[in-house]
Amino acid sequence: MPKSLFVEHLEQQENQEIEDLFVVAQVERRTTREGNPFLVARLKDRSGEIEAIAFDQVDHLEPRLERGQVVRIRGRVERFNQALRIKVLDAHPVPPQEIHLADFLPTTQRDVNQLLQKVRELLNTLRNPYLRKLFQVMLADEALVERLRLAPAATSYHHNYLGGLLEHTQNILRMADTLARVYPHLDRDLLLAGAFLHDIGKVEEYELTPAGIEITDRGRLLGHILLGVELLNRYAAQVPGFPGELLMRLQHMILSHHGELEWGSPVRPALVEAQVLHFLDNMDARIWMFAEAARHPRAPGSRWSEWWKPLGRMVFIPPPLNEETEDLFG
Amino acid sequence: MPKSLFVEHLEQQENQEIEDLFVVAQVERRTTREGNPFLVARLKDRSGEIEAIAFDQVDHLEPRLERGQVVRIRGRVERFNQALRIKVLDAHPVPPQEIHLADFLPTTQRDVNQLLQKVRELLNTLRNPYLRKLFQVMLADEALVERLRLAPAATSYHHNYLGGLLEHTQNILRMADTLARVYPHLDRDLLLAGAFLHDIGKVEEYELTPAGIEITDRGRLLGHILLGVELLNRYAAQVPGFPGELLMRLQHMILSHHGELEWGSPVRPALVEAQVLHFLDNMDARIWMFAEAARHPRAPGSRWSEWWKPLGRMVFIPPPLNEETEDLFG
Amino acid sequence: MPKSLFVEHLEQQENQEIEDLFVVAQVERRTTREGNPFLVARLKDRSGEIEAIAFDQVDHLEPRLERGQVVRIRGRVERFNQALRIKVLDAHPVPPQEIHLADFLPTTQRDVNQLLQKVRELLNTLRNPYLRKLFQVMLADEALVERLRLAPAATSYHHNYLGGLLEHTQNILRMADTLARVYPHLDRDLLLAGAFLHDIGKVEEYELTPAGIEITDRGRLLGHILLGVELLNRYAAQVPGFPGELLMRLQHMILSHHGELEWGSPVRPALVEAQVLHFLDNMDARIWMFAEAARHPRAPGSRWSEWWKPLGRMVFIPPPLNEETEDLFG
Amino acid sequence: MPKSLFVEHLEQQENQEIEDLFVVAQVERRTTREGNPFLVARLKDRSGEIEAIAFDQVDHLEPRLERGQVVRIRGRVERFNQALRIKVLDAHPVPPQEIHLADFLPTTQRDVNQLLQKVRELLNTLRNPYLRKLFQVMLADEALVERLRLAPAATSYHHNYLGGLLEHTQNILRMADTLARVYPHLDRDLLLAGAFLHDIGKVEEYELTPAGIEITDRGRLLGHILLGVELLNRYAAQVPGFPGELLMRLQHMILSHHGELEWGSPVRPALVEAQVLHFLDNMDARIWMFAEAARHPRAPGSRWSEWWKPLGRMVFIPPPLNEETEDLFG
Amino acid sequence: MPKSLFVEHLEQQENQEIEDLFVVAQVERRTTREGNPFLVARLKDRSGEIEAIAFDQVDHLEPRLERGQVVRIRGRVERFNQALRIKVLDAHPVPPQEIHLADFLPTTQRDVNQLLQKVRELLNTLRNPYLRKLFQVMLADEALVERLRLAPAATSYHHNYLGGLLEHTQNILRMADTLARVYPHLDRDLLLAGAFLHDIGKVEEYELTPAGIEITDRGRLLGHILLGVELLNRYAAQVPGFPGELLMRLQHMILSHHGELEWGSPVRPALVEAQVLHFLDNMDARIWMFAEAARHPRAPGSRWSEWWKPLGRMVFIPPPLNEETEDLFG
Amino acid sequence: MPKSLFVEHLEQQENQEIEDLFVVAQVERRTTREGNPFLVARLKDRSGEIEAIAFDQVDHLEPRLERGQVVRIRGRVERFNQALRIKVLDAHPVPPQEIHLADFLPTTQRDVNQLLQKVRELLNTLRNPYLRKLFQVMLADEALVERLRLAPAATSYHHNYLGGLLEHTQNILRMADTLARVYPHLDRDLLLAGAFLHDIGKVEEYELTPAGIEITDRGRLLGHILLGVELLNRYAAQVPGFPGELLMRLQHMILSHHGELEWGSPVRPALVEAQVLHFLDNMDARIWMFAEAARHPRAPGSRWSEWWKPLGRMVFIPPPLNEETEDLFG
Repeated sequence: MPKSLFVEHLEQQENQEIEDLFVVAQVERRTTREGNPFLVARLKDRSGEIEAIAFDQVDHLEPRLERGQVVRIRGRVERFNQALRIKVLDAHPVPPQEIHLADFLPTTQRDVNQLLQKVRELLNTLRNPYLRKLFQVMLADEALVERLRLAPAATSYHHNYLGGLLEHTQNILRMADTLARVYPHLDRDLLLAGAFLHDIGKVEEYELTPAGIEITDRGRLLGHILLGVELLNRYAAQVPGFPGELLMRLQHMILSHHGELEWGSPVRPALVEAQVLHFLDNMDARIWMFAEAARHPRAPGSRWSEWWKPLGRMVFIPPPLNEETEDLFG
Repeated sequence: MPKSLFVEHLEQQENQEIEDLFVVAQVERRTTREGNPFLVARLKDRSGEIEAIAFDQVDHLEPRLERGQVVRIRGRVERFNQALRIKVLDAHPVPPQEIHLADFLPTTQRDVNQLLQKVRELLNTLRNPYLRKLFQVMLADEALVERLRLAPAATSYHHNYLGGLLEHTQNILRMADTLARVYPHLDRDLLLAGAFLHDIGKVEEYELTPAGIEITDRGRLLGHILLGVELLNRYAAQVPGFPGELLMRLQHMILSHHGELEWGSPVRPALVEAQVLHFLDNMDARIWMFAEAARHPRAPGSRWSEWWKPLGRMVFIPPPLNEETEDLFG
Repeated sequence: MPKSLFVEHLEQQENQEIEDLFVVAQVERRTTREGNPFLVARLKDRSGEIEAIAFDQVDHLEPRLERGQVVRIRGRVERFNQALRIKVLDAHPVPPQEIHLADFLPTTQRDVNQLLQKVRELLNTLRNPYLRKLFQVMLADEALVERLRLAPAATSYHHNYLGGLLEHTQNILRMADTLARVYPHLDRDLLLAGAFLHDIGKVEEYELTPAGIEITDRGRLLGHILLGVELLNRYAAQVPGFPGELLMRLQHMILSHHGELEWGSPVRPALVEAQVLHFLDNMDARIWMFAEAARHPRAPGSRWSEWWKPLGRMVFIPPPLNEETEDLFG
Repeated sequence: MPKSLFVEHLEQQENQEIEDLFVVAQVERRTTREGNPFLVARLKDRSGEIEAIAFDQVDHLEPRLERGQVVRIRGRVERFNQALRIKVLDAHPVPPQEIHLADFLPTTQRDVNQLLQKVRELLNTLRNPYLRKLFQVMLADEALVERLRLAPAATSYHHNYLGGLLEHTQNILRMADTLARVYPHLDRDLLLAGAFLHDIGKVEEYELTPAGIEITDRGRLLGHILLGVELLNRYAAQVPGFPGELLMRLQHMILSHHGELEWGSPVRPALVEAQVLHFLDNMDARIWMFAEAARHPRAPGSRWSEWWKPLGRMVFIPPPLNEETEDLFG
Repeated sequence: MPKSLFVEHLEQQENQEIEDLFVVAQVERRTTREGNPFLVARLKDRSGEIEAIAFDQVDHLEPRLERGQVVRIRGRVERFNQALRIKVLDAHPVPPQEIHLADFLPTTQRDVNQLLQKVRELLNTLRNPYLRKLFQVMLADEALVERLRLAPAATSYHHNYLGGLLEHTQNILRMADTLARVYPHLDRDLLLAGAFLHDIGKVEEYELTPAGIEITDRGRLLGHILLGVELLNRYAAQVPGFPGELLMRLQHMILSHHGELEWGSPVRPALVEAQVLHFLDNMDARIWMFAEAARHPRAPGSRWSEWWKPLGRMVFIPPPLNEETEDLFG
Repeated sequence: MPKSLFVEHLEQQENQEIEDLFVVAQVERRTTREGNPFLVARLKDRSGEIEAIAFDQVDHLEPRLERGQVVRIRGRVERFNQALRIKVLDAHPVPPQEIHLADFLPTTQRDVNQLLQKVRELLNTLRNPYLRKLFQVMLADEALVERLRLAPAATSYHHNYLGGLLEHTQNILRMADTLARVYPHLDRDLLLAGAFLHDIGKVEEYELTPAGIEITDRGRLLGHILLGVELLNRYAAQVPGFPGELLMRLQHMILSHHGELEWGSPVRPALVEAQVLHFLDNMDARIWMFAEAARHPRAPGSRWSEWWKPLGRMVFIPPPLNEETEDLFG
């Protein structure tokens, strides 16, 4: 059962009783001055966080409010010290299969099916039969496709939400498609294949739980570049006769896409398609960051953003020029 | 009168008498063992260099063979010590107005008129009336257009030949055009205007002579970024009511297009369009370098280029994959 | 009417009624537990900040206490929770022409007239007639001189107060003057002219308001280097026959004075005078930073300053050596 | 048949006829002044290079003296222009199976069997049964062991000769062994396993031919780090039940052993054993470089080496101190 | 009299009267709402910090509770606002000679005597008579040995506790000892002598007080590298006939042991022994940091440490592999 | 006996017999085609190099023409293959005491006595009695003063000739003197003392021989910064009661004068006087480099220098502006 009531809506429920799913972000057992135990928790969903408190049935509730657990909370919204909180009346853990991750984690605002459709279309224009077969195999793997629908592109820097990887991948594929027209000497097949594969390791780099996006041990110890190469190897092994030379070039596309050693690629691009892929990857991430920064003006109405750390600068938020330019030939 | 015979064709003229224009790259007066004076020169055109020698009429020829001068040479092609050389019979300096720079300097292989046409078309799609007016004024200035047709994009790194700047500019404009579709929130007008203007200062950075491309004093002391801003200012001053805010944004596009301070931009991009312009500029230059490197295999038939200094690496020169992939669904 | 009573003096006014000008740094409307509205504000002048509170006439006062506004406050100084605050009795906005910026912003402790006089004297020793004329024109422009009197040299790093730019400029001019004696081969005219002009763009980089020093949009998007070149161009255009070669060298002095690309100069110094100017600029800033650091011992009486971020180190604060050295030949 | 006569010995064969194997490093067909064809070649073995010349039977010899080919040369050693050369009388290509690489490429001066024996001994001290099994499988693979005997550790920086990889690996294993005693909290198994595996990809990074050591396409495009991980994966797959956790840690040891991203590791060491491995790897290479530099004094008898580029410095070559210290307690 | 009761044990003393030594970390005189003076202090020992409060005899106690002073406190442990504090009943300053630094500062968990013994043993294996004599002199200097027992190796980065320098030195000596076996061409005497001397200047870099470890003025202004060289010079001067050449090499070992200029060595290692010493020094520090990081998991039971600033990364805290590997050959 | 005839004058001595001193830069014994031995040498003095040849008395001359030896050569100047050479008729080694280094090594064009006099004068203005005494002692040490007269400031970067150190030191002292007036809060005594001492270690860093300037072992292994501190220590020890605090500050001035760790200072300036000294040192060196670069135009008459490696750029060589500016007020 999906959520209907989100933290951001609770303001309107003051003094009402509510019941819905939340994930327990933190929980602590404390004692009142009178010596009675009570529970203080932080409950979370994709829209925000709220404090929860339970004075009654503490021993009953405590094992149900474990950190990281999704629980159905019945409670009363009340205001305390100017802040809203939920007074917990009852709580029931929710089994994993009933949880919709997108209720708890921020999600792309794009339509994931459309993104996926566009990716399929572009991969369908490839001419090399082995590449065509490779992507048929990959996109026929339901588990992979499902992970691709969900994976974020990063935990913080850019596209850091469910579906972010797909959004990022689709952008790069579309740019790659048009670049191949501006520069006809590029190997279009290789460029688009690389665009699809470059971050594929991220489906194994992140672990998605209602409580947040975590990096897996393999993600930290091996990195998504190696994970991507290994994943490519596994699928290529399912295509009979997949040429070793082609596999090597695809591996190189993944390995070198960070562009420079100091950005985590163990080899630098030796193919122009690999170099181009690196630029497209970097450019899409930067465009995202500028847009994100522009959503954070340093003061209401300011033409400048906050100091934006991922960019190391403030970003200009230009007002439209329309008015002043209208009358030139008027 | 344009040249008809180029250095690269002289192999076929061995032991023939020829007459055509060359530029004097070097010249020296020497003395034979017998004490007779003679002249040794290096003659050049866009296709290469050849040695020339004059044993007779030395005092007559010497003032006509000044370094940097274009001369009509009558002479005989002969072989000496396994190398071809021209034995000069007579020489006449050629007045500047009769010289076609493209005979002496390497030139783009693209059709300059088509490039210019494409640039005009794309600028014609802009919607802001002041920008439209600005580019009308600029492209109506014959002197500027002529310099734009000739200017290289650099002396060595990329597009280092006549017409190179236009080729580079057109590539970036076309990419900017398609990017504005992938990212509809970008200010297309600003991006394309910046794409056209970013390197415009290069028309004043280089001095083109038959003997080679030189950087002007202003080019070295002020740099093409400042020259570009000053040039923009002069043209914008010819558009009545050109908005100061718009001018400021265009100036920022030029100033920041190197992307980082250490690459010579006095300010970093604060607009997403400026950031994107930087990537497109950089990417087009890199694509050119990869192609150039691939034209220099480290050994005949090698799959690897020479160590390519502008890229700091060797580049892979991949053979086509066709043969081995034909039979998959055969 | 200038201020007579500054925040730093209010300690002595406890329980007194006062009336003077302050700028509103922050303001918020809140509600008491009983549901009555009240205003809490932060008032500021050049000497510090203090809290202000208004319980009565809230609707009357609120529009008068806008953020950034200078207001004449009548109120009573009282102590609450160990801290001083002003209980506002009445408030009147002050029109801009009655405001003395120096009452609200920190100001150089040097005599600005003397600094300016010294600058004039040194520029008067130049020999090149075009330079002499240029500086006559500039120093005859009252608006420019007024901005020069007020401009800071930076918002935080050094000389970050009214008059700071003039103090910095004067120091560099004096050093340049003596260096020209130690190194007679330097072009003294060029060096001193560059010393005066190098930061002149800062008069347009900062916006001075009672509430603080802000960087203008042009400052952020174009930088004071470009602003300085454009300003120089405007004044040079007022000197008939100003030689292009001389203008180019002056432009180079401004453009290159940060010394290296990564410090924001689009070109590196190509003239020894430009190189020297960079050192003098840098040295004066560093000397200021050391003095500032030394005013912040890490503990009372300590021989070491706090960790001083602009210098990336702690600074030694040496006690005088006099006593222990007196007796050597005693 | 192994070589008996090396280039370095030919000085003693002046004016003698000789017959032995050489590899053709270069070859060119030229024409004498009289118009007769002749061949000039450079012949090489592990000890040096010599010029060879053939005036007779040119058409017969030319196809036999292909670049890169090992040939049995019959010829006469003669001196021409102060330099020794071989006048070729006859030449026969040698089939690959008769070629001993060590005749043509420089080789470690250590006993490869002893090195290998020491490596086996140390790996035999591991306690984890899966690691023991893994190394049994690897060292039972004759092809791998043979490549391990031959592989160099680099093409130029250090241990750049046949057997160099084994020498380097053995050094690191021995150091790892003793470090595990000084720091008992280290996971000795993991450290030694990593020491053995860290450069194992180099057996696929280099191609050994009589004409020299080349980097393979896979070496350049994928790098020995990825090749090593893939090789490990293949062998681990042969050990039933090899724990995924253990495999992940071994992969991390290989991936991170360059220590920092900018040195080509896609991830930095996250395990202390990986960090230690990086130091040992780096230290062994540096010790080799110092020894090599010390073999190249800048002048005969000098206490300083040439400027040694891999170290970026000159190295001190200290004479022994024995004599001057003998008499202290004498 | 050594302490018996440490801050970490006071939890068990709630509502008890205690008496023991503490150092005053902070102290402030305040006034109650009723206008009565009281003292609030922070008391410290090697195990932690606790608040102390004194309401009575304030004028009597204040001069006895000076910052940095060690005092015998008689007081009552009580709980206030959930935190433990000491209500001070009486206080007596303790004379320096009665203070054991190790009661107040964190101390190595290794046995300092054993460490020192191992150092002596290893130095005793040197063969050069002048080095033997040098270390006899040094280790016979009681004051030096005492400082060596106490000195930390750093204030924060590694081994930042009493005895840390000795622990660090001993580790490096032991590694040097084994390395000399793996690389017999190393000058073992020089390497071990350098290992002992490299950080010896730290005995003058730090000032140890019960309140904490401070860096001396000489430490900050001259650095432990110079202090070490000067200290070496003083002891070498006590060995008659100490060879200048040997002294120079030892000085070089100290000067270059940071390995690179940017890490504070004024010269880079020019002797392989100096280069090796640098690696051992760096490696021992890093091993310490990994162990320290691993003691700080980011969450209870996490396999990853906190972000560890001295390492610039999170560290993997691997659980043992034992269980899963037991059954391979079972 | 000083030299009268220098290599640069030999052009005028063609076919004459000459006799003068030269240093042997290189020498080789060869054999003519006829099998007769002969000697080929390179002879040098401060003005240049010339080839010398000896066909007769080879066995007599060979031991007299040792590399590095100064010899009185009697010979005949002749031209061979367009180059001048000396045919050696006789040669006599010259004892060291008869050699004037300035005949063989390039020398400052400034008057060393005047430089020294200026240095004495400035040091004489110091007020601290211990510093006055210190410099009295130093300047009374004839050996030190003599080395100071001769020492270069570097082997290549700047002031790389006899007397260069004194020239450099005097420049810095003079600048320090004037800076103390611009910034009266600087400790003038400390700044000038540091200016004199900062490079004093260079008198032990270089070994001056007729054959060239060499860096000593101590120079390479310890560096002039440590050598300077040790030299200061030795002289300060001769001033009774020299305050330790003052000595420490002087040591800091020497140690930190390279300004940053990566430029070879083991500590960064912690005193403003040390920071200023660093700038003056750096600035004087740069001014020298610009002047040197300007002496090397890239082509005759060019306004730009060669690419100047120590500066990493080309330097502008501006023609004077006089002519074009004369007529402004004419």
